[in-house]
Amino acid sequence: MEVKLKSGERIVDLERNGYRIIQDRKRFCFGMDAVLLSGFANVKKGETVLDLGTGTGIIPILLEAKTPGKHFSALEIQKESAEMARRSVMLNGLEEKIDIIDGDIKEASKIFGGSAFNVVTTNPPYMTEKHGLQNPEEPKAIARHEIKCTLEDIIRESAKVLMPGGRFYMVHRPRRLVEIISLMKTYGIEPKRMRLVHPFVNREANMVLIEGLRGGNSMMKVEPPLIVYKENGVYTDEIHDIYGF
Amino acid sequence: MEVKLKSGERIVDLERNGYRIIQDRKRFCFGMDAVLLSGFANVKKGETVLDLGTGTGIIPILLEAKTPGKHFSALEIQKESAEMARRSVMLNGLEEKIDIIDGDIKEASKIFGGSAFNVVTTNPPYMTEKHGLQNPEEPKAIARHEIKCTLEDIIRESAKVLMPGGRFYMVHRPRRLVEIISLMKTYGIEPKRMRLVHPFVNREANMVLIEGLRGGNSMMKVEPPLIVYKENGVYTDEIHDIYGF
Repeated sequence: MEVKLKSGERIVDLERNGYRIIQDRKRFCFGMDAVLLSGFANVKKGETVLDLGTGTGIIPILLEAKTPGKHFSALEIQKESAEMARRSVMLNGLEEKIDIIDGDIKEASKIFGGSAFNVVTTNPPYMTEKHGLQNPEEPKAIARHEIKCTLEDIIRESAKVLMPGGRFYMVHRPRRLVEIISLMKTYGIEPKRMRLVHPFVNREANMVLIEGLRGGNSMMKVEPPLIVYKENGVYTDEIHDIYGF
Repeated sequence: MEVKLKSGERIVDLERNGYRIIQDRKRFCFGMDAVLLSGFANVKKGETVLDLGTGTGIIPILLEAKTPGKHFSALEIQKESAEMARRSVMLNGLEEKIDIIDGDIKEASKIFGGSAFNVVTTNPPYMTEKHGLQNPEEPKAIARHEIKCTLEDIIRESAKVLMPGGRFYMVHRPRRLVEIISLMKTYGIEPKRMRLVHPFVNREANMVLIEGLRGGNSMMKVEPPLIVYKENGVYTDEIHDIYGF
């Protein structure tokens, strides 16, 4: 499928199924966070998935490549990002498998209805600080800061759109872990499995991957630490496996 | 100081300040959990400390050796354990620095009063399952299972006896992490710092060390994973450092 690139756009090879994605340096480009989430999320055969705040569509595209899920929906509030994501879906011929929907996370349960998905994934804005932002309408600011939605909006809407027994997967910052766990409990998504990501084995965690079960009972499993570098500039074998090269 | 040993008792060298502790295989013997907690807890010059459920007194004795704390109180419900702890305090000549008190964690704030300590430490029973226990009055069962007190009792009483700004240190099982964090939030001890202990770098965590701040704001730091073995039977350098040999 031929897809037209706009000025400033480029195509990135995802090293999975020959899939590619359109990116633009002026907008938020996908990071390791999204790639690690796609390796952490467990999507089973025949399941339906919703990605909240999909940006340029990295998570549904990677999940389609890596898992036997049946269908992937993805919601994005920034129309230009959603439009790029839609062209990436076409670029890979995935129109039957992935739908990119324009819309607001705060309205997710109105858009999709309740108990609609087996799995929800999200790589949300990490930062609460909205003050001092030069331009809060700038696309990167919206992707990074809780301008259009809060963590509570995301978890509340996830709980509504998940079927009972459905699974929630999020990547976030460890500094907000207490808030994450408290909000998941509040909205009935029990945290069940967690993985801390450390840049080096002797450094603080800078990301957390967490799985919750809608309506689950209380029992947490903390998996082995995910270490990114074995030495400066050299990825660990596990990171190479997740990236696929 | 000469101290009389009872039948079945032995003296263990703690490799710190020449300190020793009396243990008895029939009772609960201290484990790596207590030693790691003594390395994780941060007790500053002049501070007062309460150890809840001290058993045979390992935590106050190690903290007295490792930190510049002013005074260490320790509460224990099992009279025979408390009596052994008291003889270990004498064995090390620490009667001025450590008090072992007979009593129930559920009554801690009645025994000591509110806002009484800068620091609380605890290595509590990990297991909720009381059913199926052959003999719930057996000393090891009381140390391991929530027979005499629950996690909620411990966190509630800790919050009461801590001064505002006081710090709480606990070692527990990761499987109960959600409950731990929820209860700490409920009783106003904000979880601030956490360390997961993994037997090997590629294994699930089997202990969690957590620090809370009475009245703190929400921001968690997840420290580097604490790895116990670098290969079978060979401790990592960090474990050797914590043990002091």
